[in-house]
Amino acid sequence: MSYVAPLKDMMFVLNELAGLSQVNALPGCEDASPETVEAVLEENAKFCGEVIAPLNVIGDKEPSYWHDGNKVTTTKGFKEAFKAFGEAGWQGVQHPTEFGGQGLPKLVATPCIEMLNSANLSFALCPLLTDGAIEALLTAGSDELKATYLENLISGKWTGTMNLTEPQAGSDLALVRSRAEPQGDGTFKVFGTKIFITYGEHDMAENIVHLVLARTPNAPEGVKGISLFVVPKFLVNKDGSLGERNDVHCVSIEHKLGIKASPTAVLQFGDHGGAIGYLVGEENRGLEYMFIMMNAARFAVGMQGIAVAERAYQKAVAYARERIQSRDLAGSAGPVAIIHQPDVRRMLMSMRSQVEAARALAYVAAAAYDAAHHSADDAVRKANQAFYEFLVPIVKGWSTELSIDVASNGVQVHGGMGFIEETGAAQYYRDARILPIYEGTTAIQANDLVGRKTARDGGATAKAILAQVRRTEEELSASDNPDLAAIRAQLASGSKALEDVVNFVVNNMKSDIKGVFSGSVPYLKLAGVVLGGWQMARAALVAERKLKAGEGDAKFHQAKIGTARFFADHILSQASGYRTSIVDGSAGVMALAEDQF
Amino acid sequence: MSYVAPLKDMMFVLNELAGLSQVNALPGCEDASPETVEAVLEENAKFCGEVIAPLNVIGDKEPSYWHDGNKVTTTKGFKEAFKAFGEAGWQGVQHPTEFGGQGLPKLVATPCIEMLNSANLSFALCPLLTDGAIEALLTAGSDELKATYLENLISGKWTGTMNLTEPQAGSDLALVRSRAEPQGDGTFKVFGTKIFITYGEHDMAENIVHLVLARTPNAPEGVKGISLFVVPKFLVNKDGSLGERNDVHCVSIEHKLGIKASPTAVLQFGDHGGAIGYLVGEENRGLEYMFIMMNAARFAVGMQGIAVAERAYQKAVAYARERIQSRDLAGSAGPVAIIHQPDVRRMLMSMRSQVEAARALAYVAAAAYDAAHHSADDAVRKANQAFYEFLVPIVKGWSTELSIDVASNGVQVHGGMGFIEETGAAQYYRDARILPIYEGTTAIQANDLVGRKTARDGGATAKAILAQVRRTEEELSASDNPDLAAIRAQLASGSKALEDVVNFVVNNMKSDIKGVFSGSVPYLKLAGVVLGGWQMARAALVAERKLKAGEGDAKFHQAKIGTARFFADHILSQASGYRTSIVDGSAGVMALAEDQF
Repeated sequence: MSYVAPLKDMMFVLNELAGLSQVNALPGCEDASPETVEAVLEENAKFCGEVIAPLNVIGDKEPSYWHDGNKVTTTKGFKEAFKAFGEAGWQGVQHPTEFGGQGLPKLVATPCIEMLNSANLSFALCPLLTDGAIEALLTAGSDELKATYLENLISGKWTGTMNLTEPQAGSDLALVRSRAEPQGDGTFKVFGTKIFITYGEHDMAENIVHLVLARTPNAPEGVKGISLFVVPKFLVNKDGSLGERNDVHCVSIEHKLGIKASPTAVLQFGDHGGAIGYLVGEENRGLEYMFIMMNAARFAVGMQGIAVAERAYQKAVAYARERIQSRDLAGSAGPVAIIHQPDVRRMLMSMRSQVEAARALAYVAAAAYDAAHHSADDAVRKANQAFYEFLVPIVKGWSTELSIDVASNGVQVHGGMGFIEETGAAQYYRDARILPIYEGTTAIQANDLVGRKTARDGGATAKAILAQVRRTEEELSASDNPDLAAIRAQLASGSKALEDVVNFVVNNMKSDIKGVFSGSVPYLKLAGVVLGGWQMARAALVAERKLKAGEGDAKFHQAKIGTARFFADHILSQASGYRTSIVDGSAGVMALAEDQF
Repeated sequence: MSYVAPLKDMMFVLNELAGLSQVNALPGCEDASPETVEAVLEENAKFCGEVIAPLNVIGDKEPSYWHDGNKVTTTKGFKEAFKAFGEAGWQGVQHPTEFGGQGLPKLVATPCIEMLNSANLSFALCPLLTDGAIEALLTAGSDELKATYLENLISGKWTGTMNLTEPQAGSDLALVRSRAEPQGDGTFKVFGTKIFITYGEHDMAENIVHLVLARTPNAPEGVKGISLFVVPKFLVNKDGSLGERNDVHCVSIEHKLGIKASPTAVLQFGDHGGAIGYLVGEENRGLEYMFIMMNAARFAVGMQGIAVAERAYQKAVAYARERIQSRDLAGSAGPVAIIHQPDVRRMLMSMRSQVEAARALAYVAAAAYDAAHHSADDAVRKANQAFYEFLVPIVKGWSTELSIDVASNGVQVHGGMGFIEETGAAQYYRDARILPIYEGTTAIQANDLVGRKTARDGGATAKAILAQVRRTEEELSASDNPDLAAIRAQLASGSKALEDVVNFVVNNMKSDIKGVFSGSVPYLKLAGVVLGGWQMARAALVAERKLKAGEGDAKFHQAKIGTARFFADHILSQASGYRTSIVDGSAGVMALAEDQF
């Protein structure tokens, strides 16, 4: 079964929940009219379904491989597909027209990124990392660096990487040891070993632009002594042509649980005299710039979670329709398709409702990003930036954690066949497992949510969002639809739980830091289910209004209400358990001494 | 890191929660004194740790393979290990001395099974299935069949299999099509294709004794027309020596997500004239007999869940102690082992507490089985049988579902390294995924719990168990320990939620069967967390008593209370969410028409 993009749901979320027409009204977003956007998405859906999705299974079976000491050959078909991807302009959707991009809002790029990742998570990682490199150069690169690299990155002729991790420095970048020595001519020589470098070496592009964290001589210890460098695989001549091979080499790639077609490289810098590097921005501000890439990448990894969950859902639905087994519980003459069984239905609804909720929340976040970047009004920009930044760790952490649950349910729907690799459901379960780890583990996201996003402003942003949730609760109260009443009840308990937890975090941060951080991941998940539930509630309100007005596709709107109802009773209902874990649970977390484990 | 059996916890559960000394007092269980049992478990721990555990990784890397049209060669070392296993008497722990077994209670066999599975899930499947075959022959086999097969199965010279599934007949055995034609001499010729046959072919034993479901001519349709046959790989001569090769052949094995060393065979019966089979018990009662095997096997698969979760936990603890990364939140000069980070601690406690709770519940169930089989008192036997049967679907369904969560957390604790296959954490995540599927999916277990175990007796067994839980709550009330008070609070909400749900099931079964079954899996999980929480609460009471009396290992008892506290606040606290899903959630489950997915 191939991938069919859920365009109807995407357009519903864009228009009804994320406010595409408001984004379209922002300065610089004039091209993103709902009609144009729909046409772009249709085109992207076609490309992803026809060109990229068919390469997903073969990428898993015949992964990229390392050979000849420093070369990586990607899965057959990837190179041609990437060329087509670049030529069609898909790398440039959200990047400035000045460097050849399409200059469309993040709200439009977001569903494109979802589709590409649903089609093929491994393939999509290459553009994802390239987006990050583009972002960093746009923000902090000199005019010369921009002129040298951006156009070719945006056209897909070259690709980009992020080089953070070293064997001793994973989540803790203070431990980075790679070093960069100034050569007196403005360039540096970079030395060190970087691991877990996604698409750190491959054969899909003419050049690879590595963005590398390293320390200059006499830099301060810790994270304040890290600088960011561009280290291209091939040096670039003044005229833009490719010059000498730089001293960065892929010495191996990893044998992984999933996303096997995506080469995860160990890169050795400077073993043959030093890799030529160019400083990005100012010395010792590398972490700050890297965070620009990381925040974009974190949001995109959240989209990967939604994307793989959507694909797993589609596959499970297809199997549940076709697998004939057991009679209908309500009594049927012969065996029926398993989609009639209540528990299969429950699993499918669980998958579907989580995907829809996470999608809605992510697209709403993307719209806030656009308002934060394009609004003419300072206050609007500020409020939207705070809202977006609050949501990034949730989009990343919650969407990726749920993708594992969804992919696991996808295997379960297939029964014994799900455990057989040929079936294909297991690949999503394996692929999804990296998502809550890379670009900052769920704990890292949760710590960000607790520290920078909640405690720092005394819970102000969180409470502003809760006030919006309360307004949705009021709207729900006005409805006489029993599904909306049930949704309101769960949303009200959920938002109360979230409010309690925000107060708990703010009030205890100083007196009991370990106690607060003991509940950081449950807090992130609580925020995810409540804010996801909020979006589903908003969706149900829109659907009810349209149904009453006799507008649009009634079946779609009825399904939206049913899905929102499921989410409320089965997912949002977990809120009180999370609240207990956070508010009462730190004693248990820290109860044992290290030697009692 | 190798496997170290958690003997201290096992003995604590056996002695303090499962009542080993009461089991020892039962007629026929005189050999199972606490001292003897401890010695047996120590010996088993040594064997599993030294002989079986080292074969786990190699079995994953170099799985069993199929060749020469019908042969399977198992991973190097498996054959020798299985010989040693049989010779040491481990296959016979729970089987009658009459046929060469050790005749020990199920309560003693259960930790042995846990250890073997922790050491190597793939390896342990061969004895697990053999146990099932022994059980079926003991219950329904003729004296001749018993005399021919049992001794060699119990000694580990031969192995057994269960042949249920066919391509069109998975969860629904009514669809079985294999047929058995009487030959007039008391034997049958069996024809058909069986799939997913664990250790259906291998090189570890001289003979393989297949127990096969098939239909005799003119048998009724559906499950009432299925008979059970013994079909040995090699026919057995009158003198017990091996005769001709029977017409059952392995035509392929599956390429699976996990448990790769365990060959999963497609068996073809009768393609060359018919496979000679021997009827077990009476015609058309095959399913009934198969359920004997299945109930034993279901309990054992529940133990597999606990076992793989324990192994994943041990590996995660070891990594968390050794991986140095980031400073301590409370402030430390340099980076510390990640076991100091609150969220790592939370994950480890989540893993640990779920394993301990599931272990306690399973061992308590095993003790009930022994009382049900050995007590001299009819009423005691009956009550214990009902208790055991209620727990079997929970032990199977809940322990296996949580094993995925635990193994997934195990990967997460390892960060990026967890996704690299060489690390070994990913193997548990892959291996565990089959457990909620085979021997009856979680939905099948949950339907059993709802239908046969709850609705059939009007909730009587469930309520009798709840009354016991309430007594534990009262004991907790008498304590002045704040941890016990917190545990009591969560146990009380949990047991109330479970009571509500039992009433909901009993009251709505007739009027709204789909509505009730929509909540069957959440009900199973609710029962798991409440009854697991009950056992942890009992454990905390014992630990507190011992601490006050100054008896035993204080650190162990403090850790037990801390772990019980964690379970209460973080796992048992999910009860109210499950209650909502079940009582209010069926509308959402069935909201969509088939064509709306």
